[in-house]
Amino acid sequence: MKFGVVIFPSKKIQDFANSFRKRYDSNYALIPPHITLRSAFTATEEEIRDIAQKIGEIARSFEPVTINITKFSSFTPVNNVIYLKVEPSEKLEKLHTELKLNFESDQEYNFVPHITIGQKLSDDEHSDVFGSLRMDKVSFTESVDRIHLLYQLENGSWTVYETFRLGKE
Amino acid sequence: MKFGVVIFPSKKIQDFANSFRKRYDSNYALIPPHITLRSAFTATEEEIRDIAQKIGEIARSFEPVTINITKFSSFTPVNNVIYLKVEPSEKLEKLHTELKLNFESDQEYNFVPHITIGQKLSDDEHSDVFGSLRMDKVSFTESVDRIHLLYQLENGSWTVYETFRLGKE
Repeated sequence: MKFGVVIFPSKKIQDFANSFRKRYDSNYALIPPHITLRSAFTATEEEIRDIAQKIGEIARSFEPVTINITKFSSFTPVNNVIYLKVEPSEKLEKLHTELKLNFESDQEYNFVPHITIGQKLSDDEHSDVFGSLRMDKVSFTESVDRIHLLYQLENGSWTVYETFRLGKE
Repeated sequence: MKFGVVIFPSKKIQDFANSFRKRYDSNYALIPPHITLRSAFTATEEEIRDIAQKIGEIARSFEPVTINITKFSSFTPVNNVIYLKVEPSEKLEKLHTELKLNFESDQEYNFVPHITIGQKLSDDEHSDVFGSLRMDKVSFTESVDRIHLLYQLENGSWTVYETFRLGKE
């Protein structure tokens, strides 16, 4: 099975992100708006119990994390993903690193915290959409007090396996 | 905000349910296959913290619950919902009752544990689909060790707020 670890931002931010994802994100129906902390990794249903326990330990060793969303950005020219930029912070970076250190990873990118709002756009569509969004002001700040371990179903959608509170037994 | 409490069965059962939901369930993209323990109720983001704590206490006072799925069934003539029947059990009933007693409820139906696989079908479609499924054998038994508190986004989809392990601190 494929697993991943994410932050779901508040309803307010999810609703905002979905207003764009609906049109531009081919994964719109497969997963709610999220910040990926640990991208898809493979484990069996037996292995995941130990992994979940380890993630729980990591989560408890953290305090809630503040996230700042400051603008629309894009991974172009690497790919045509448009996203809400989450300002990097030491705490987010540390959370990502701990989750990465503790598990086999085939993660090939640096950690750029973000909420995807568009992907698999043609070059022209990407240009149009990002061109009109890049100047827009976005400003959200909130405290995140939980992370979620998800698994993927055969249809590509994601279900939550477990929630872990940051800094809480 | 609208909240609800559900059980997500194992990936195997979810994949099985989705093979039907894809064609027959208008909520297919809004929520993974689930057993509703507490149907949609309204609370503010502040209230939900206390509610979540109370659900946590209830969950901890339970042991994991065995669920048995035995056949396809339908709520006809009340409505045209087709579902996987989860055999009622004392434990499931008790879990539902505790969740109901502790919160204001506008639940107007008896508790019939089930996993919806089709809804909002026309009478003819319901007849055809249920007619062909009702004789099929279905047999799943598994232990459920967690329940999930969800909230609904503006687009109608559901996000997990928190997971509670049954019988575990």
